[in-house]
Amino acid sequence: MIRLFVPDDLRAGAGLAPAPDQARYLIQVMRLGIGDAIAVFNGRDGEWRAVLTEVARRGCRLTLESQLRTQAAGPDLELVMALVKRGPLETVIEKAAELGAGRVRLVATRRTNADKANLPRLTAIAIEAAEQTGRLDVPEIAAPEKLDRLLDGWDPARRLLWCDESGAAPAALGALADGGPWAILIGPEGGFAPEEAQRLRALPFVVPVSLGPRILRADTAAIAAMTLWQAKLGDWR
Amino acid sequence: MIRLFVPDDLRAGAGLAPAPDQARYLIQVMRLGIGDAIAVFNGRDGEWRAVLTEVARRGCRLTLESQLRTQAAGPDLELVMALVKRGPLETVIEKAAELGAGRVRLVATRRTNADKANLPRLTAIAIEAAEQTGRLDVPEIAAPEKLDRLLDGWDPARRLLWCDESGAAPAALGALADGGPWAILIGPEGGFAPEEAQRLRALPFVVPVSLGPRILRADTAAIAAMTLWQAKLGDWR
Repeated sequence: MIRLFVPDDLRAGAGLAPAPDQARYLIQVMRLGIGDAIAVFNGRDGEWRAVLTEVARRGCRLTLESQLRTQAAGPDLELVMALVKRGPLETVIEKAAELGAGRVRLVATRRTNADKANLPRLTAIAIEAAEQTGRLDVPEIAAPEKLDRLLDGWDPARRLLWCDESGAAPAALGALADGGPWAILIGPEGGFAPEEAQRLRALPFVVPVSLGPRILRADTAAIAAMTLWQAKLGDWR
Repeated sequence: MIRLFVPDDLRAGAGLAPAPDQARYLIQVMRLGIGDAIAVFNGRDGEWRAVLTEVARRGCRLTLESQLRTQAAGPDLELVMALVKRGPLETVIEKAAELGAGRVRLVATRRTNADKANLPRLTAIAIEAAEQTGRLDVPEIAAPEKLDRLLDGWDPARRLLWCDESGAAPAALGALADGGPWAILIGPEGGFAPEEAQRLRALPFVVPVSLGPRILRADTAAIAAMTLWQAKLGDWR
């Protein structure tokens, strides 16, 4: 069943006007007609069955019928992702949505080459991936901040899994031992600067781990770490 | 250090003429000069330090100095990958090299739309990823075959991890219990046909597993499954 993310409140009998690009997708691409049903979600009210009740020259209207699934909180996993190149960054956003991250925080580090990101585009990628993967919310993509500032304001109750490439860190699967909120930190292509690694190593909430003997690209490391977290502590159990 | 995969035998004092595109990369892109060192490997003789000893108008020559690492067998993991679209397929080849798969076997299933693949291009992607990830071999990319034929000739001593989307399969991490040779089977975007799923379910060497409650794209599932195998049974332990 086609799934659409919408901003509207969802309740039985309510009408819904999808955004122009969503309407175009439903009518012109998927060729839905009056009476066809899709699923909609808004991140707050669960998933609803919505029936196409009006098709106009521009746009269409849906009527909400019944709730298919109630809203449930996803696993409490965040991703702190260095501003890598556009291609791998977009891959990571898509995969973070599929792998159930609740929020992606973008960071500039000593060795990142960018301090900006195209947030509307990244958010659109997150929405599309959330629609396709079947989740009931969309991961928030937070505007880039500097790593040092992010660490200054870190809630120490949230553990930060740091994929440490020094080779000295313990295997990730064993280090993922405690429940509760976690985040995963992925550095840029060139790794962290020595002073950044030193600070990370000294922070009590940072859990340094190894992702094996081979050098991983940043996007691969992000996907691998989210996978291991979900399998060991998240909703893949 | 720059790493190059070469076909030549490697032994101390031997000379080596890199392929034209490799020579161009060393001289024109990386701007190496006489006396600069790189690392070379061929999948058989370990990794060697090689020094640039000649630069000509077209091409260059390296002289092998000393062995940096001896050849060691990687973990015995294969990937059986359905012929998905070119973008995700190329991603999977790159990540299979990074995640230490020894061989990728491409398969056509009832729901794949292709029965061919650009093997030279996929092999080039595997070589580049192997060079960058630091491994001592390059995963073989085997020509596409039909799933039924592949299963007919399967060595039952090699377990086949099947990412079963039916929702009834046990969690992957727990199902990855026994050592020995494994392969991971990833289906096409549309999943396996019912008759394919039925056959897989009945085969004694097939281990059906779940990769969580969300629907994963084929490339995400391949990366996630290889990650879990390496963490639980492979060289990430």
